[in-house]
Amino acid sequence: MPFSYGRTIRFAETDAAGVVYFANCLCLCHEAYEAALAEAGVNLKLFFSSGAIAVPIVHAEVDFYQPLFCGDRVEVGLTPQALDQSSFVVSYQIWRGDEGIERDRPLAQALTRHVCIDRTSRRRRPLTAELQQWLAQFSAAGRD
Amino acid sequence: MPFSYGRTIRFAETDAAGVVYFANCLCLCHEAYEAALAEAGVNLKLFFSSGAIAVPIVHAEVDFYQPLFCGDRVEVGLTPQALDQSSFVVSYQIWRGDEGIERDRPLAQALTRHVCIDRTSRRRRPLTAELQQWLAQFSAAGRD
Amino acid sequence: MPFSYGRTIRFAETDAAGVVYFANCLCLCHEAYEAALAEAGVNLKLFFSSGAIAVPIVHAEVDFYQPLFCGDRVEVGLTPQALDQSSFVVSYQIWRGDEGIERDRPLAQALTRHVCIDRTSRRRRPLTAELQQWLAQFSAAGRD
Amino acid sequence: MPFSYGRTIRFAETDAAGVVYFANCLCLCHEAYEAALAEAGVNLKLFFSSGAIAVPIVHAEVDFYQPLFCGDRVEVGLTPQALDQSSFVVSYQIWRGDEGIERDRPLAQALTRHVCIDRTSRRRRPLTAELQQWLAQFSAAGRD
Repeated sequence: MPFSYGRTIRFAETDAAGVVYFANCLCLCHEAYEAALAEAGVNLKLFFSSGAIAVPIVHAEVDFYQPLFCGDRVEVGLTPQALDQSSFVVSYQIWRGDEGIERDRPLAQALTRHVCIDRTSRRRRPLTAELQQWLAQFSAAGRD
Repeated sequence: MPFSYGRTIRFAETDAAGVVYFANCLCLCHEAYEAALAEAGVNLKLFFSSGAIAVPIVHAEVDFYQPLFCGDRVEVGLTPQALDQSSFVVSYQIWRGDEGIERDRPLAQALTRHVCIDRTSRRRRPLTAELQQWLAQFSAAGRD
Repeated sequence: MPFSYGRTIRFAETDAAGVVYFANCLCLCHEAYEAALAEAGVNLKLFFSSGAIAVPIVHAEVDFYQPLFCGDRVEVGLTPQALDQSSFVVSYQIWRGDEGIERDRPLAQALTRHVCIDRTSRRRRPLTAELQQWLAQFSAAGRD
Repeated sequence: MPFSYGRTIRFAETDAAGVVYFANCLCLCHEAYEAALAEAGVNLKLFFSSGAIAVPIVHAEVDFYQPLFCGDRVEVGLTPQALDQSSFVVSYQIWRGDEGIERDRPLAQALTRHVCIDRTSRRRRPLTAELQQWLAQFSAAGRD
């Protein structure tokens, strides 16, 4: 079961073509990631600040199927998955909010890959217990 | 009674000093303005697109009293007021979400002035009926 | 020969982890794309406004190898390539500015795929003469 | 003599009304401030990171006279002025780039007020020697 995050598209996210600027879709996905971490009890201020351990995004990709407009209600479905001891991937699907998340094809879908590193040496570190726990919620046994 | 809009501060809004980048406070205020218009039945996609009538911001100002951090829950209290036949001002107070909006001093406060114009000639036009109605909700008699 | 676009990383692009927020790397790449079009004589205001023909990005991806900091001078090397009659891909490499663009590995690399469509029907259209000409500058014979 | 900073308006700065999103004018002004500091030899990475001393913006305001479009070339004229031992104000005028900075009225003008503080206690601190030197360049005797 994916985590679901909903909100309304805002004017600041749009561009002169009248739709959401492409890179802002990735910001929306990251917001959903933050919301999912917060729901699991992660302290966002500490997690995303400049502490000893960092979990930077090393790869991101996004496909756009339909444009998003100011005022549109959207739902982001998010599913993270561990890749190895120090990294995980999060996949996102952006749906029109009033459609639910059962439709054939989302408005957009995206993916981010994250690696746990020591901020100073920038060497890989094992995923923190907090992240392992978060990832476990989404594995085989499912979330509840 | 001000309109109240709440949400969580996101990572994308912060800067390398560890707090919300100053100009992003104005984006947050504008979001509250969009939410207030939407609640009053305004179609945001049409209102903010490139139609015949535009309502650009001609002045904005903001005072910062306390820094905002990623993960902070904030509430924006918003009150619009007509200035004359073609313009209005919106004032905003940003409060820490868990404090309610009854405290002594907000984290920040801001103000935007908007003028209704013909998009082509850029000449002033009377406020649309939709905006007049919205403004009336906040006048003497109050909102309910 | 790729088109080269250089500038300094700005505070607004950074996040509370102290480095450029991941999605902002794609904005930087898009800036390079705009600069390349402008150099070829394309009117950016018309090209990116809401005219009859639009050239939206349908896919984007980015890999991050090294973090970017406020004040860093970067160079973006850009190479577009036609895919078929209605679409093209642009690849980007972000280099530290003082290294030139001859080094082993960039700080980041990205790719955007663009499709020419009719804005109303959202059906594919052949690439405009302007875009075909721009793409031709980068093909076999090379740019000079 | 103001410091002058020029660049081209980018697509990411625009909104669905077809012009630069209001708060992005303040980002442009801040960019000019960063460029002025860099020209005076300030290390931007250190200055804007989370060190012991911070120089946050405590007030900002902006007036818009003409809209800015994607592709527009603009020049920002910037003049800082010390207010007291721990604070200074920077004023900005945004001009159309091909007009020079001699015209009657800019496209927009803005102002930011900055206070030097201890990041931990958030108490006022005297302006650093680096900032005093920078401010002195713009005082009575003028810049050269």
